[in-house]
Amino acid sequence: MDVAVIGATMTPFGQREAWIQELLTKAALACLDDAGVGTAVVDQLYVSNMASGEFEGKTGVMNALAADIGLTPAYAQRVGQTSASGGAGLYAAWQSVASGASEMTLLVGGEKMTHRSTGESSDIISSLTHPVEYSHGVTLPSFAGLTARAYLDRFDVPRESLAEVAVKNHANATKNPDAQFKKEIDTEDVLSSPMVADPLRLYDYCPVTDGSAALLFCPVSVAKQYTDEFVRLTGVAGATDTHVVHEREDPTWMRAVAESGRQAFEMAGCDSEDIDVAELHDMVTLLEPLELEALGFADRGEGWRFAVEDRTTLSGDLPVNTSGGLKARGHPLGATGVAQAVEIYWQLLGEAGKRQVDAKRGLTCNVGGFGNCVTTAVLEAE
Amino acid sequence: MDVAVIGATMTPFGQREAWIQELLTKAALACLDDAGVGTAVVDQLYVSNMASGEFEGKTGVMNALAADIGLTPAYAQRVGQTSASGGAGLYAAWQSVASGASEMTLLVGGEKMTHRSTGESSDIISSLTHPVEYSHGVTLPSFAGLTARAYLDRFDVPRESLAEVAVKNHANATKNPDAQFKKEIDTEDVLSSPMVADPLRLYDYCPVTDGSAALLFCPVSVAKQYTDEFVRLTGVAGATDTHVVHEREDPTWMRAVAESGRQAFEMAGCDSEDIDVAELHDMVTLLEPLELEALGFADRGEGWRFAVEDRTTLSGDLPVNTSGGLKARGHPLGATGVAQAVEIYWQLLGEAGKRQVDAKRGLTCNVGGFGNCVTTAVLEAE
Repeated sequence: MDVAVIGATMTPFGQREAWIQELLTKAALACLDDAGVGTAVVDQLYVSNMASGEFEGKTGVMNALAADIGLTPAYAQRVGQTSASGGAGLYAAWQSVASGASEMTLLVGGEKMTHRSTGESSDIISSLTHPVEYSHGVTLPSFAGLTARAYLDRFDVPRESLAEVAVKNHANATKNPDAQFKKEIDTEDVLSSPMVADPLRLYDYCPVTDGSAALLFCPVSVAKQYTDEFVRLTGVAGATDTHVVHEREDPTWMRAVAESGRQAFEMAGCDSEDIDVAELHDMVTLLEPLELEALGFADRGEGWRFAVEDRTTLSGDLPVNTSGGLKARGHPLGATGVAQAVEIYWQLLGEAGKRQVDAKRGLTCNVGGFGNCVTTAVLEAE
Repeated sequence: MDVAVIGATMTPFGQREAWIQELLTKAALACLDDAGVGTAVVDQLYVSNMASGEFEGKTGVMNALAADIGLTPAYAQRVGQTSASGGAGLYAAWQSVASGASEMTLLVGGEKMTHRSTGESSDIISSLTHPVEYSHGVTLPSFAGLTARAYLDRFDVPRESLAEVAVKNHANATKNPDAQFKKEIDTEDVLSSPMVADPLRLYDYCPVTDGSAALLFCPVSVAKQYTDEFVRLTGVAGATDTHVVHEREDPTWMRAVAESGRQAFEMAGCDSEDIDVAELHDMVTLLEPLELEALGFADRGEGWRFAVEDRTTLSGDLPVNTSGGLKARGHPLGATGVAQAVEIYWQLLGEAGKRQVDAKRGLTCNVGGFGNCVTTAVLEAE
């Protein structure tokens, strides 16, 4: 069964007064409007969300959303994969259509975080870290610092190259009205920002963000009844790596990224060289080059050259994170994987405004934990 | 794609010292052992869990489990649908196999609750109730009381008939070594137990429980390579009802149960009269007759007669909750829907010990909230 995406929307990302339910509702209704599809046609709803219970003491968000936007009695389920919940939502939505269970599936991802302090958010997110590591004070930001040190040392990588990732993604975000940080920065801003986990500094990391995003899926045969303007989800797959990060043979090699990418490419019948645009999971600058390597875009130890050599800018041969990425568009956990696919959808349909690139085939890579669980997807213009 | 279940296990339900991760691990490994399938063959893992973050500050349970039992790099995802998370897991597992995404899917459901006080557990569970109702003090147990009053009045139902449901399910649990309450009770015990929400009393309600359960799914063609003893998942579907319970036209009619049942029967190509054994969601005694009615086993207002007339006992024409049900086997939220299917699997394969009934086709109905989201499944002996 060929699976199409016929609608895509997101709320502006940033600090929002709206609670999770309102964020989800806005993206969901806008997506149905975008596709020109009525609620009566939607038979399945998936909600990607990491931790609404922990962040705001609210659970059952999928049932609440189904009721709020008039989808009942449609099936509704919450999809969880920590910060890759959105990517897992893409896979769940694909399965719902490809299995024949659904003829019209709405996927909505969202998270409301900014009402919590950075410390509280960190505690919630760190609850995915194995106690054997967390008890020693290791959190996701410090894994990134340790891994960055290893990467810089082993491959003789200039520290500045990581800062270039942040500079590029901020530049892209200035062209994205939905981005959290619509502000240019330069390398010096990154290198002089407060130290977080040596050698990484504040501007290497993504912010805490509120927001939501939505996509509408159906069989290609059904899509054609609604529109000529749609995208195909031709490849999607996921993989896991160890829960205890220090058990990995090589922390600079993102095994679950590589494995999910391999499977997604195989399913789509293409390879990294066929990808024209990509949204990668730059929770921290370091992850963008590591994912470029694991997905086969760059050789081992060479991913950092892409930002330095302007290959991943809007005018490069592989624009990466045209949206601004997690770094500058923002990272509302459950929304991110969905928003990545929204950006690719817009790029493939020529709806990306000032950040439009020339692309027929795009890729998304959404990462949970420190590469613990990953979903990679390939989308293609019709 | 025909989907088979080739393994089924559960941990004993009750008060356990083990935390969620250990509970999940035990059921998962036992299930693989039961099926004689090695971890290398499992390519997808689904974990049904309502609230590990809220109950014990632990998230990312699917990645942790995948790593703990050696499944990496298999895909892993958490499935959430509040107290129907297990039923939603059946649907997710079916979709993973039926879509061709997986050739061997392990589903594990679990919850660890008893370390929390009843009040704390109630707060966590009540976070699915709409604020417009919760702010007036309405919780799931009180919805049940209000609805019971309406049901008893409208259909001239004897109060004792609800107590008979508890008596029957406790009797069944005495024959189930994995049940939480292996103790017979009589009608008088129920009617003299402390009042919870008039007219319902303590013994009308299920307990707070720790436990886990697991099932192994694959295409029927793959199942035959491992065993002649398997079960087919021939029908599975889900539906939602309003989030605000008082918006329902008739709270005694479980619309999402009816809708999910209708779809599951249609998919399986059978009807209620073809079902030989059923596991229903008796979070409170009242729900068993309401589900019998919504699923078409009984006429409107007549479901209560089934327990009174011994039709749903082990020797009746439709044994219901042979396991003891939520009432007496216990109700570890995310595990329940999985455990329901484990019981049907055992009944269909003649492995139900002292509570064995004669059955070729069984049904499970798992309910989230007060009928907010429901998944119904039909399983058949090969």
